[in-house]
Amino acid sequence: MLTVDLNCDMGESFGAYSLGRDEAVLAHVSSVNIACGFHAGDFAVLSQTVKRAKAHHAAIGAHPGLPDLQGFGRRYMAVSPEDVYHMVVYQLGAIQAVCHTHQVPLHHVKAHGALYHMVCQEPSYAQALVQAVSDVDQELQVFGLSGSRLLEIGEAAGLSMVSEVFADRAYEDNGQLVSREQPQAVLENIEQAAERAIDMITKGNVISVNGYALAVRADTICVHGDGYRAQSLAAALQESLQTKGIHMAPIGG
Amino acid sequence: MLTVDLNCDMGESFGAYSLGRDEAVLAHVSSVNIACGFHAGDFAVLSQTVKRAKAHHAAIGAHPGLPDLQGFGRRYMAVSPEDVYHMVVYQLGAIQAVCHTHQVPLHHVKAHGALYHMVCQEPSYAQALVQAVSDVDQELQVFGLSGSRLLEIGEAAGLSMVSEVFADRAYEDNGQLVSREQPQAVLENIEQAAERAIDMITKGNVISVNGYALAVRADTICVHGDGYRAQSLAAALQESLQTKGIHMAPIGG
Amino acid sequence: MLTVDLNCDMGESFGAYSLGRDEAVLAHVSSVNIACGFHAGDFAVLSQTVKRAKAHHAAIGAHPGLPDLQGFGRRYMAVSPEDVYHMVVYQLGAIQAVCHTHQVPLHHVKAHGALYHMVCQEPSYAQALVQAVSDVDQELQVFGLSGSRLLEIGEAAGLSMVSEVFADRAYEDNGQLVSREQPQAVLENIEQAAERAIDMITKGNVISVNGYALAVRADTICVHGDGYRAQSLAAALQESLQTKGIHMAPIGG
Amino acid sequence: MLTVDLNCDMGESFGAYSLGRDEAVLAHVSSVNIACGFHAGDFAVLSQTVKRAKAHHAAIGAHPGLPDLQGFGRRYMAVSPEDVYHMVVYQLGAIQAVCHTHQVPLHHVKAHGALYHMVCQEPSYAQALVQAVSDVDQELQVFGLSGSRLLEIGEAAGLSMVSEVFADRAYEDNGQLVSREQPQAVLENIEQAAERAIDMITKGNVISVNGYALAVRADTICVHGDGYRAQSLAAALQESLQTKGIHMAPIGG
Repeated sequence: MLTVDLNCDMGESFGAYSLGRDEAVLAHVSSVNIACGFHAGDFAVLSQTVKRAKAHHAAIGAHPGLPDLQGFGRRYMAVSPEDVYHMVVYQLGAIQAVCHTHQVPLHHVKAHGALYHMVCQEPSYAQALVQAVSDVDQELQVFGLSGSRLLEIGEAAGLSMVSEVFADRAYEDNGQLVSREQPQAVLENIEQAAERAIDMITKGNVISVNGYALAVRADTICVHGDGYRAQSLAAALQESLQTKGIHMAPIGG
Repeated sequence: MLTVDLNCDMGESFGAYSLGRDEAVLAHVSSVNIACGFHAGDFAVLSQTVKRAKAHHAAIGAHPGLPDLQGFGRRYMAVSPEDVYHMVVYQLGAIQAVCHTHQVPLHHVKAHGALYHMVCQEPSYAQALVQAVSDVDQELQVFGLSGSRLLEIGEAAGLSMVSEVFADRAYEDNGQLVSREQPQAVLENIEQAAERAIDMITKGNVISVNGYALAVRADTICVHGDGYRAQSLAAALQESLQTKGIHMAPIGG
Repeated sequence: MLTVDLNCDMGESFGAYSLGRDEAVLAHVSSVNIACGFHAGDFAVLSQTVKRAKAHHAAIGAHPGLPDLQGFGRRYMAVSPEDVYHMVVYQLGAIQAVCHTHQVPLHHVKAHGALYHMVCQEPSYAQALVQAVSDVDQELQVFGLSGSRLLEIGEAAGLSMVSEVFADRAYEDNGQLVSREQPQAVLENIEQAAERAIDMITKGNVISVNGYALAVRADTICVHGDGYRAQSLAAALQESLQTKGIHMAPIGG
Repeated sequence: MLTVDLNCDMGESFGAYSLGRDEAVLAHVSSVNIACGFHAGDFAVLSQTVKRAKAHHAAIGAHPGLPDLQGFGRRYMAVSPEDVYHMVVYQLGAIQAVCHTHQVPLHHVKAHGALYHMVCQEPSYAQALVQAVSDVDQELQVFGLSGSRLLEIGEAAGLSMVSEVFADRAYEDNGQLVSREQPQAVLENIEQAAERAIDMITKGNVISVNGYALAVRADTICVHGDGYRAQSLAAALQESLQTKGIHMAPIGG
């Protein structure tokens, strides 16, 4: 029986600012990536989100990002690989302690936004992330874009790497995501996105913006979109999986 | 043989901003309190400071502070006890992970600046700190002002509490430190400060600003002052201890 | 004919975080207080909000706050009066330049959150605000809580002071607002709030939590509450004013 | 008689963090670029620095930077040109108001660090800076790297552009500065730097890292280096100018 993980970003509120519909989305996913206070989230939101995810039996992941709240971690910053190492260690430690207070294990790591693209595309950044995870807890699973160098680098270092696909993001011919600054970056049609996700799982490929079939490995599917859309997409994906008899569960547990 | 700990704040640099003479001070103290990135320090400085402290065999402590870099954590902020709990858990986790990457244990916790005064004086804040430490790692020692409610509250919760005195800070008649906003808050004369520290250790008391003898328990002595002064004071204290045959060592090992 | 101003806070979004329903509220108020990037808002939001307010012909006010985004400027911080002076000058300058780029005048100043309470209650803080406004542009009107020392101190310094009342906030017997931490701080019933506002304008008094009639001067009425509530309250107040034949307009213009 | 301006960055301290020897450097330069609170400086430091510069009769410039205190504004961030426009307007306004409180005019604008390179090299960023200055105060002079597109774009928009050279920074063959990440980026020898500055002023050229003579226009010379070095370099340049009979004065008065 096929199994796939459905993951979603979470815990992105900050102080008086509320973002996302975490409670609603939690009903439809098997794992969550929780902001660690750099690009979003704060120490109180982090704890509340871990608690909530635990109640829903979702696998809890760290979602470390660049130190850029104003840019929501989506703007590339020319940080050094050493800085990437240190910022990931720091954020992993923070969420580890929060998980400890809620007596729930930390399950995986997925970099956020610009940091995700940096570690997937640039080997020195990938190495920094991999080293940080290895040094903090080598049992943690690490999410990376299907086909990215990060997956190879992490596997070579002995980490459990998880190949990720995006249901509603357009793919370049080289397998990278079309930048959010491009108009066609996001597939608006949720049914299409769900259908495409099923293809990625069962056929192992996805069609790029120029019509090429790209081989992908769908260990986990990212559910994106802020608030209402994330909820709708997650619900649609969950239903499609059930219809197709595909089991939804966190990787490795 | 009498034993006492000498502690100093450390790791307070931030980005391009350098503060303190950590390397020089480390030669003279037995334990250090390392800033965790809220009131001072950053993820790179934190790692460098843990590494440096380990090389000097100093006991490593977390020095969590209020989220106020501009005020260096010295300004009271009306945060809730819940916020204190969460900010301490977060900062403890961050430094725990950094210690783990350097394979050195985290030894103690000492709140910084305004947060130190808040947890020493106000029971709800003390309770929040004690709960945070208990939930994260109940083996951690907790520093608190000699005579403060924090020590009682922590002991009642089963934590190992460490009674702290200040060599060069003036004391109010009620045992609290004279505020830094007062002109006589700091004893300028280093020899006097060293002498007073010896009295606190051997006689168990200190003379307040109005001439009262206050009973104190000197498990650890705080070495204060930025940069050159901290170094001089630490060196003078270390020498006084040697002269008096008092052993300098971290509490509990 | 009676004239009164209706004011509302605005421009409190930050980066990816959206807050408030500014466009909807603008249809119902005569003046707005725009966050200046310290407790909320950012440089892009600030410009967009000034543009929007200009399009609605609302009088534009600066809404300087404490440097505490995480606490939304609602937490007291022990800053010095000198710091209050400097932070107000800085924020006034920022919004002045933005107004200049949109060719619209800056009309008034209203401190935000904790800073509002600090300058209304504590003379040294009031003095700092008054001095900052005097030094930057003494033509700016300054809003202050009806009955507060700030109004006296500002008038003594030759500034145009505007006495403010709150339609839906409970009053202590001494004329201060009941703290938001108290359950009865906010009047939930919008019709009651509107009715009370009319009384404040026409009768010049308001009933405190313990039933005392407090004399108030209602030059401007603050419309509060985030998002939907602010919109509903503003609409209800605007309608009440029309019904009673009271003219709604910014003070002094 | 030849005239040249000597400029130096200033006001980069932040809260408890002290940086630079502003008072000492002020004795040797004709104009200063004052940090505006984004990459360095804070509202209190800004005011103190303007006051100090006024006392030394230095021409006062705004030194806007990227919103990145931790990276001291030296890390490239993928901000939009719109963001550059808004962040420059905001920072110009802040320092304008501070200058107004000290009754001293704002004289020029020089972008800091990564932002300097962005506006000198990339036309869309140059356009954003030029538009911001034009909209805030078109009398402000704008500093730009000698030979850069920024100078052309600013002149086309009618602004008074000032061509800047660096005494102690190595030049690429294309006229850009060698990146600080390269070992040979900074000329360590102060006498050599002073000599080279004189050549740039009198001969109008500088030798690149590969030995090419690059034509430069030296309206203003940047004195760089933190603290002691900035002071030494400024003093050496000032003396060289005097020896050569070159007048040191701000551009345009």
